[in-house]
Amino acid sequence: MLPAVTDENGKDYVEPSERIATFDNDGTLWVEYPMYTQFLFAFDRVKELAPKHPEWKTKQPFKAVLEGDMKTVGASGMKGLMEIVMETHSGMTATEFAQEVSNWLATTKQPRFNRLYTELVYQPQLELLTYLRANGFKTFIVSGGGIAFMRPITEKTYGIPPEQVVGSSVVAEFQDKDSKPVIVRIPKINFINDKAGKPVGIYQHIGRRPILAFGNSDSDMQMIEYTMAGEGLRLGLFVHHTDAEREYAYDRESHVGKLDKALDRADANGWIIVDMKNDWNTVFLAK
Amino acid sequence: MLPAVTDENGKDYVEPSERIATFDNDGTLWVEYPMYTQFLFAFDRVKELAPKHPEWKTKQPFKAVLEGDMKTVGASGMKGLMEIVMETHSGMTATEFAQEVSNWLATTKQPRFNRLYTELVYQPQLELLTYLRANGFKTFIVSGGGIAFMRPITEKTYGIPPEQVVGSSVVAEFQDKDSKPVIVRIPKINFINDKAGKPVGIYQHIGRRPILAFGNSDSDMQMIEYTMAGEGLRLGLFVHHTDAEREYAYDRESHVGKLDKALDRADANGWIIVDMKNDWNTVFLAK
Repeated sequence: MLPAVTDENGKDYVEPSERIATFDNDGTLWVEYPMYTQFLFAFDRVKELAPKHPEWKTKQPFKAVLEGDMKTVGASGMKGLMEIVMETHSGMTATEFAQEVSNWLATTKQPRFNRLYTELVYQPQLELLTYLRANGFKTFIVSGGGIAFMRPITEKTYGIPPEQVVGSSVVAEFQDKDSKPVIVRIPKINFINDKAGKPVGIYQHIGRRPILAFGNSDSDMQMIEYTMAGEGLRLGLFVHHTDAEREYAYDRESHVGKLDKALDRADANGWIIVDMKNDWNTVFLAK
Repeated sequence: MLPAVTDENGKDYVEPSERIATFDNDGTLWVEYPMYTQFLFAFDRVKELAPKHPEWKTKQPFKAVLEGDMKTVGASGMKGLMEIVMETHSGMTATEFAQEVSNWLATTKQPRFNRLYTELVYQPQLELLTYLRANGFKTFIVSGGGIAFMRPITEKTYGIPPEQVVGSSVVAEFQDKDSKPVIVRIPKINFINDKAGKPVGIYQHIGRRPILAFGNSDSDMQMIEYTMAGEGLRLGLFVHHTDAEREYAYDRESHVGKLDKALDRADANGWIIVDMKNDWNTVFLAK
């Protein structure tokens, strides 16, 4: 694709303003296995907030979180997980929530690698982001994760400013709090930026079609279909997690980042499957 | 405010990434009197779509639009106007709608000034936008108007790319149309980016608090309150339309761009009122 789109005299030239690249976050830019980082944050929040919620001692799936019974938490499914996220991600101001996220990410280490989650980002992807920006691309995150969970760290971690982060969100309200105007987070879903929601999020937030999109799971297929359906040169890519030694190996049967249909359809659609084990010299950010 | 926020050694220095400036559109960047441009577009769309909607001949407020009875249209209130906008702004793909808007704005002239609406933008504001960007600011539009109505022209007209336009929106869906993936606009409100919705739109879309906000009506008050409530140097401004000769004069009693409470509260809050007649050497973009 590059350098064709940057060659002003070539037939594939693309104006800088149209050089939009979108990246999924979990499993595409940072580790998502064995559990999405945001859920781990939410579980820790449940423990922290438990004294204010005595009812959680007997209410599932909160009870299971407090007892460390991850099997029951998992069995509560997406509905149970969303309930946990909702309860732990709302009822405070936007500023307070951003501070909670920043504190947690600055101090919580991933057990297997004993590193901060913001250090478990993929070095080759950071290089790609930098390379794209050096060639006039504007880089965006388009994730199923919470927009407010990602924004506190995306600029420092990826060089992507908050306004270029598209994600899921709760409803927010403008309120007067002690005669200071604040944004308060409400326990109600505003938008789920996943699967068919991703192209919609791109439309509402960015307002143009990307020419490059990078994902790692079936949840990214619609984003990549939408990207590839435009005119001119297009690039759609998936990270395939094949490296159990340096990271993790999972795909068709995984409970997170399931990559199944996209693998079957990749060839016919011209999607590029990046094989982590064989294609990446390094995986994580160098220490 | 400038150059204080750009002086790296000064106490009021603001990192470039935090130099966020938000501008209302109607009445702040381009003409809104005697009627918001988007409504005029919607009225023309009613006439164009009428053959496909025989029921509009007897159904208000569509009947009144078709008969040119603006008094009845106005009497239908915001509810009637929203119905017109909804019916004329949905049921097509995102690309088709953008094309409709572009065509209309490229050909429709404002009657009094006999110029395209994209030419009836305020020269002093264009200079301010340019000046801010030259000083490291990122400029955004935050308007009650439809995000998809503005985006086709903001880059060329204001130098503001589509992804930096925040506005009202309808729900969108990702669909397969003749086996091509498209975004389809649905006749259902997604978000109204007006009044208390403006700070919320800023939070969801931009994710940081502006340090400068510019509006022209009471609908911009919450955006400006939110902006001014942050720490460090802040600037909140309103255009006061005082120039009946070169543009229009309207404020407290106006049916569009009502500026009433903000005028009363400006002094106490340190908001700057820009008097169009006395403060602006030129009004519109030079021919």
